[in-house]
Amino acid sequence: MTVVPHAVTAGREMVEAAMRAAVERLDPRMRRVAAYHFGWVEADGSAPRGPSGGKALRPAMALLSGRAAGADMARVVPAAVAVEFVHAFSLLHDDVMDNDRMRRHRPAAWTVFGVPAAILAGDALLALAEEVLLDRGTTGAHRAARHIAATTRKLIAGQALDLGFETRTDVSLDECTVMSMDKTAALFACSCSIGAVLAEAPNRLALALSGFGEDLGLAFQLVDDLLGIWGQPEVTGKPVLNDLRSRKKSLPVTAALGAGTPASTRLALLYSQPDPLTEPQLVEAAALIEEAGGRAWAESAADARIAAAEARLAEADIPGDVREEFLAVARFVTHRDN
Amino acid sequence: MTVVPHAVTAGREMVEAAMRAAVERLDPRMRRVAAYHFGWVEADGSAPRGPSGGKALRPAMALLSGRAAGADMARVVPAAVAVEFVHAFSLLHDDVMDNDRMRRHRPAAWTVFGVPAAILAGDALLALAEEVLLDRGTTGAHRAARHIAATTRKLIAGQALDLGFETRTDVSLDECTVMSMDKTAALFACSCSIGAVLAEAPNRLALALSGFGEDLGLAFQLVDDLLGIWGQPEVTGKPVLNDLRSRKKSLPVTAALGAGTPASTRLALLYSQPDPLTEPQLVEAAALIEEAGGRAWAESAADARIAAAEARLAEADIPGDVREEFLAVARFVTHRDN
Repeated sequence: MTVVPHAVTAGREMVEAAMRAAVERLDPRMRRVAAYHFGWVEADGSAPRGPSGGKALRPAMALLSGRAAGADMARVVPAAVAVEFVHAFSLLHDDVMDNDRMRRHRPAAWTVFGVPAAILAGDALLALAEEVLLDRGTTGAHRAARHIAATTRKLIAGQALDLGFETRTDVSLDECTVMSMDKTAALFACSCSIGAVLAEAPNRLALALSGFGEDLGLAFQLVDDLLGIWGQPEVTGKPVLNDLRSRKKSLPVTAALGAGTPASTRLALLYSQPDPLTEPQLVEAAALIEEAGGRAWAESAADARIAAAEARLAEADIPGDVREEFLAVARFVTHRDN
Repeated sequence: MTVVPHAVTAGREMVEAAMRAAVERLDPRMRRVAAYHFGWVEADGSAPRGPSGGKALRPAMALLSGRAAGADMARVVPAAVAVEFVHAFSLLHDDVMDNDRMRRHRPAAWTVFGVPAAILAGDALLALAEEVLLDRGTTGAHRAARHIAATTRKLIAGQALDLGFETRTDVSLDECTVMSMDKTAALFACSCSIGAVLAEAPNRLALALSGFGEDLGLAFQLVDDLLGIWGQPEVTGKPVLNDLRSRKKSLPVTAALGAGTPASTRLALLYSQPDPLTEPQLVEAAALIEEAGGRAWAESAADARIAAAEARLAEADIPGDVREEFLAVARFVTHRDN
């Protein structure tokens, strides 16, 4: 397990306090779902029995991007809150759409509060993401809110494409990459630049940071896809071989299916059978993906993306300590185990 | 049938053109769901076979509120687009949550494209509502976007409360009014003032228009609730006695249940039985609501709200022709049959 970088822990309390204050604006029902999702309470409203909640990478990056622009951390907290709310919105809705029952070692919100409450809580957090930014009357807040809205549009396009993949057998690696760019990398790009946008930094800086975030986000997704197949359930908080059970056309799977090897053909056969895959079939599918080169491809693609991200960061005119912390986040993303 | 007021038809083409241009930004899958929802295409993507789409009251009021502030209609079109997108977002999601299969004489979007696509399309339109406003860099656009975000929060609180009513037998008329205020009147209040906000009118004017919209919105909901029981399905586009079938605790139902008459008791008994209500039971429930005074109460409450709305409008310093058109919309709202 890699050590959590300083940037991720540094502003955590400040961001969480702001998140809690914003969630207080919601009506009691939505507040409860949101508090459960963020790991602040258990399902019955009692104090959490253990540490939970997400990795909070996105708010950390948002704060870093503010510091990259020379802004005081406190000034860009709304940007960190906004990206974490958009992330939460997408998780709450995706779990409903993908029928995923586990999230961060706990039952997904929809299994606890019902589908309608999970949909509504996602809606509420999306609207609240805009509101916390627009509460500030500055030009930077205006631009940051627009950044969030445009990013949300991409994120939705990615999820729509992903859902479309479910019924298709001809998904190309290019399409799958476009999907991951929209579904994951877009919010990383936004997170890595929104602090700078809020702080009214020059466009050039925001673009460089956004480019860094985009490459980092794709690397993150590649690692996520690998963990979705070969991750330890007790660490990831999701059921073993979860992505294969739902026959997700993730990047390593798509690479394996398109590799043209005998293992690719057998994998395609397994993925196209109508009945749910048995446990032995899931294990076989994972082995076939590895045999067809999907695992090795994803691992080297993640490394390449991190290298590209680092190159993009090298172009950005930012303080040395901020650069170091961004790089630590990048290393954390590729070496994490959950 | 009441004649559609001039205000509703006047800016319709301009608003629809702007809506279509904004929807073009969405990815093809979401674009298709949105186009179907707005009645621009049939489910298979072909040209619509007949007139459909909604009444477009909210965009009409948004344009009027811009004119109330002396703004050119073209300048406040984004406000009209934004409120119609938020309305569409809420309908797309509510139909999923409420399991409503019909909308505007056609199958609801989720029955055609599936639940995930309907959820995502709603999400996309909510984000797009913010984006069309924030595309303008003005202070008015910033405030209007914030207005939309805060209104969405209320709308969600109302829907959450409404969903909570389903499992309760002790809903008071006060609670039901609060629910309708949030679920319906908030977006009416926003629609009647957002054009003025976008045009940077004085706060006082925006508040007066918002107050008018709030009363008008509650009147609208009361009429909606009456139509949900006694409306003609061929005119409303929804199944006969739809609200009673799902045992909605709408305003007339709640008034009847709380009236303390023998009919109230029989209605409570019907509403609490576990099996789906049969057609004769639905007809009986409607008769009991009328007998318990729920219908008469809702009719007179709607009239009282319209009178209050008119009084609020009288306080607003706006051009005479705009006032006349607002009043025409108010009359249309109470005398409509769909």
